[in-house]
Amino acid sequence: MIKERLAALRALMQQHTISACIVPGTDPHASEYMAPHWTEMSWISGFLGETGTAVITMNQALLWTDSRYYLQAEAELAGTSVELMRESDVDCPTITEWLCTNMREEKGKVAVNPEMYSVNGYRALKAELEEGGLELLSMDLISPLWTDGRPAIPTSLLYEYSETFAGESVNSKLTRVRQALKEKNCEALVISALDEIAWLLNIRGKDVDYTPCLISYVVLEMNKCTLFVAPSKLDEAAKKYLQSIDVCTADYDKVFEYLQGLSVGSIMYDGGKVNEALYEAINTTVKTVNVSPSPVLKMQSVKNATELAGERIAMRKDAVALTRFFYWLENEALKTPQTEITLAQKLGEFRAMGENYTDDSFCTIAGWKGNGAIVHYHAEEDTCAKIKGDGVLLLDSGGQYLDGTTDITRTVWVGDPTLIPDAVKRDYTAVLKGHIALANARFPKGTRGNQLDVLARQFLWAEGMTYGHGTGHGVGHFMGCHEGPQNIRTDNNTNPLQLGNICSDEPGLYRANQYGIRIENLIAVREAQNLGAHATGETFYEFETLTICYYDTNMIDMSRMTAQEIAWVNAYHSWVYAETAPYLTEVEAAWLKEKCKAL
Amino acid sequence: MIKERLAALRALMQQHTISACIVPGTDPHASEYMAPHWTEMSWISGFLGETGTAVITMNQALLWTDSRYYLQAEAELAGTSVELMRESDVDCPTITEWLCTNMREEKGKVAVNPEMYSVNGYRALKAELEEGGLELLSMDLISPLWTDGRPAIPTSLLYEYSETFAGESVNSKLTRVRQALKEKNCEALVISALDEIAWLLNIRGKDVDYTPCLISYVVLEMNKCTLFVAPSKLDEAAKKYLQSIDVCTADYDKVFEYLQGLSVGSIMYDGGKVNEALYEAINTTVKTVNVSPSPVLKMQSVKNATELAGERIAMRKDAVALTRFFYWLENEALKTPQTEITLAQKLGEFRAMGENYTDDSFCTIAGWKGNGAIVHYHAEEDTCAKIKGDGVLLLDSGGQYLDGTTDITRTVWVGDPTLIPDAVKRDYTAVLKGHIALANARFPKGTRGNQLDVLARQFLWAEGMTYGHGTGHGVGHFMGCHEGPQNIRTDNNTNPLQLGNICSDEPGLYRANQYGIRIENLIAVREAQNLGAHATGETFYEFETLTICYYDTNMIDMSRMTAQEIAWVNAYHSWVYAETAPYLTEVEAAWLKEKCKAL
Repeated sequence: MIKERLAALRALMQQHTISACIVPGTDPHASEYMAPHWTEMSWISGFLGETGTAVITMNQALLWTDSRYYLQAEAELAGTSVELMRESDVDCPTITEWLCTNMREEKGKVAVNPEMYSVNGYRALKAELEEGGLELLSMDLISPLWTDGRPAIPTSLLYEYSETFAGESVNSKLTRVRQALKEKNCEALVISALDEIAWLLNIRGKDVDYTPCLISYVVLEMNKCTLFVAPSKLDEAAKKYLQSIDVCTADYDKVFEYLQGLSVGSIMYDGGKVNEALYEAINTTVKTVNVSPSPVLKMQSVKNATELAGERIAMRKDAVALTRFFYWLENEALKTPQTEITLAQKLGEFRAMGENYTDDSFCTIAGWKGNGAIVHYHAEEDTCAKIKGDGVLLLDSGGQYLDGTTDITRTVWVGDPTLIPDAVKRDYTAVLKGHIALANARFPKGTRGNQLDVLARQFLWAEGMTYGHGTGHGVGHFMGCHEGPQNIRTDNNTNPLQLGNICSDEPGLYRANQYGIRIENLIAVREAQNLGAHATGETFYEFETLTICYYDTNMIDMSRMTAQEIAWVNAYHSWVYAETAPYLTEVEAAWLKEKCKAL
Repeated sequence: MIKERLAALRALMQQHTISACIVPGTDPHASEYMAPHWTEMSWISGFLGETGTAVITMNQALLWTDSRYYLQAEAELAGTSVELMRESDVDCPTITEWLCTNMREEKGKVAVNPEMYSVNGYRALKAELEEGGLELLSMDLISPLWTDGRPAIPTSLLYEYSETFAGESVNSKLTRVRQALKEKNCEALVISALDEIAWLLNIRGKDVDYTPCLISYVVLEMNKCTLFVAPSKLDEAAKKYLQSIDVCTADYDKVFEYLQGLSVGSIMYDGGKVNEALYEAINTTVKTVNVSPSPVLKMQSVKNATELAGERIAMRKDAVALTRFFYWLENEALKTPQTEITLAQKLGEFRAMGENYTDDSFCTIAGWKGNGAIVHYHAEEDTCAKIKGDGVLLLDSGGQYLDGTTDITRTVWVGDPTLIPDAVKRDYTAVLKGHIALANARFPKGTRGNQLDVLARQFLWAEGMTYGHGTGHGVGHFMGCHEGPQNIRTDNNTNPLQLGNICSDEPGLYRANQYGIRIENLIAVREAQNLGAHATGETFYEFETLTICYYDTNMIDMSRMTAQEIAWVNAYHSWVYAETAPYLTEVEAAWLKEKCKAL
């Protein structure tokens, strides 16, 4: 089947004298979770993993993916004639390197579907190809071929997200964004990021898993706001709501025409998010202004008091679900056979009992022993580990509640705590110390996350250890579990941490084939309190810890903890107990009290 | 006099229909220490401070400078008709903001001498002016006017810097730089930074204070290297040396012609350093490639084993000078009247006794009590403080030795140590803890200085305190005391720390009108040693402390020090004593032993 599709694509390429076609695993909205409609990469290559890019030439078909997917790709590409390019390997060429080397003779054209590339991504690709003598062409070659059986664009209903939860009226948000446009002398803004649209218009939907967003575009003008959305998504209530906030609607794919017809002096777009096809649709008489991150994302990342209050409520519900789950795990679960998947399911059930729960915020990672060392581990029914004997369990999960979004990781010892190896305690304690140091950080206004990242890594680095992922990602409010622009990573992110930003604090340590350790809370940036009499007068910020769940104190090597760290854990545990116990049964509360007893 | 100069300039501006002229306090080599020949800003404005920019329009003359110079500028500008623009004040417009606002009506031309702007600086200026409807023009309006009494370009002799000190032959350096050019498909490199020229050709001079550089340009081609330098700088030995390394010479100002005539495919330049006039001189048929930092600076910043060994020798000489100075200060100095300046002179005398000493590496900062709180304090003969009674002395100084460059700050209590206020001890200890934490840092290859900066600030930040300068600057080898591209600052410097980089580690804390505290060592990046059995396999780096001088332990609040920090200070003091004592008199050594005794 893949071979037939490749043949059809090549025929089309020949017709247009195209030498190569790149098909990335992306969608037009730069989404983390994609609707099946846009799985063009999988359709043409046969590879079903989430991350990958296919490249098709007249003689070859290749699929770039990273080491997480090597095994899966090998299996799925077998017999398709598509070759696997192992992009995590140091000697693997990048796609442009490969094209520039292998297509050098032909000096040909490379086609991509411009909807699948951000403007910035498209420009970078174009520059690299041109450097190598190749031409980049915007042309969707897959849609004309993928006519049979292509999944439709999801059709979930748009619903109003109450101001009770959102904490700010649409009118107020639109006024603020328009002010930001004015400041850059712009008269319009095009938005393709689904979380930005949802935030701006106080709307939600259920088009994809885990993120309550709705597939659409927005073009905002100074006196008009148009939502481009499939009519099937709008019931009477939705129409009425959109009218009430003065938002016009047009069909989803009419956005291109609309941009062509839009006659304003200048339009703003976020080149890191807005897709190239939208950009190309903008009338050439209009000046385009690339602002990244967009003013919408910047505002959205600063949670207001209502949103933060909602997060605290969501956290209490998560706390109850987690406590019940861990109580069950320690006292009940292992009376019957359990696997990583049954544990995840059970946790999901506990979480779903929470009021206003709508979904998980991502697919729960339950990593038993060696599987915990695979950072983006995804358990499969037929291969997942059985929970047997004593060992380390890493559990990373989160929920979507109307009040807010959660994301928490705890690593616990399952079984007899006297069997915990010293090496595990040493590793757990080094991770915990970093987790605490970051949670305790105070920093002047203007500080970026990459300046604080080392606080979480310092105890690991001191012994030559590190982890290969970021320390913290931004988190949305009843929206994406990953949200920019702020984060706490080693990368050169220039966005400072702002009051009201929410980030994760999740250092880890991974011992291949043995165990993985990660400890994650969500933390919110607030004004520093009680700076004391010696402060030098600058504005200082600090973090409020939002997540409410005990740490497995059996795993702590007390000899490595300072008095301040112990005091911090004790204070946190007192708070965890106080916040959670009222919602537990007496037995569960007594059990939690023991878990939270002072070190 | 200033008024006459302004009138002459305005006549010239009128002649060329120029609305405004910007005269910055820079030179054509982006130098830290400028030869008087280039003090165009001072000549036209009357302001003699080191940092400032004059702007002259037909009706107004203005001088932008920062708060360090407000008092000086007020005095020097009195009666000149030049108005002071206080650029540290939040409501002070930038130069381009001022021009775009005040010249909006005229839509006129703004002239600058392109030799005084880096290419990147010129482009940024041009873009901002054009945004505001103004045109930027390259035209030197000062030189035609400043004919009488303009100081000549310095004429110190070029001398060979022995490979014994440099540790690498010119041939090897040229080969490496040419390889770097090849990798970017370039066939030539133009260099205007004086330290890069000195490093590349193993030459030194004495054209300016503190940095042993020589005013010149270099154009490097694949088979030719041309040094543009005044013939008067070349004695027979110099000529012979340059011949021996196969370097052609041409007169200093022939570089522009040479670039016009240079016919290569493409030429590399560092747009952050190379001046706009050089760039404009490049033949338009030649492709220009802007690479910042230049490959030369990148290589130069990585000290080789010989350079590092030389630094260690220089540090021992500094240790002896500092110890003798502090011994003298405690036991002899105050028997006669002393001021900040006499202390600085005495320290200079001790330092000058060191073998291979050539100069100080910058003007010693001796800040008594409140003056120590002025970060860039420069004592003046008639206003400097008398050292009397008990108080905090901040002493920041450094030497140029043929072996290497030093830079050290110590803060000591002068007088009765039982009188040290608790607040001083608290502040000193918070600074010292950060200084130690940075010195102790371990970090994976690829880490940038801005990721480590917080280690030095964390104890201050915890109490809402900070300092307004960088934590660490790069340091040259018998060259500039400030050298890029690496540093340890909060800024977004994308250059990672490399093996062999030297940086300062100098946190501080400043209490206006009371005292300043700064503790500074130089540290070098080396491969981490003894990572232990649990390391996760990445390449880790750490710092080697180069500077050898005791800390004033009377100023430490022991209750705030951890056991590890105390152990670190004790180990450092043992080493300081062992490295220094052999070069001291018996009495001095006994005194140092007491200073270095275990806490």
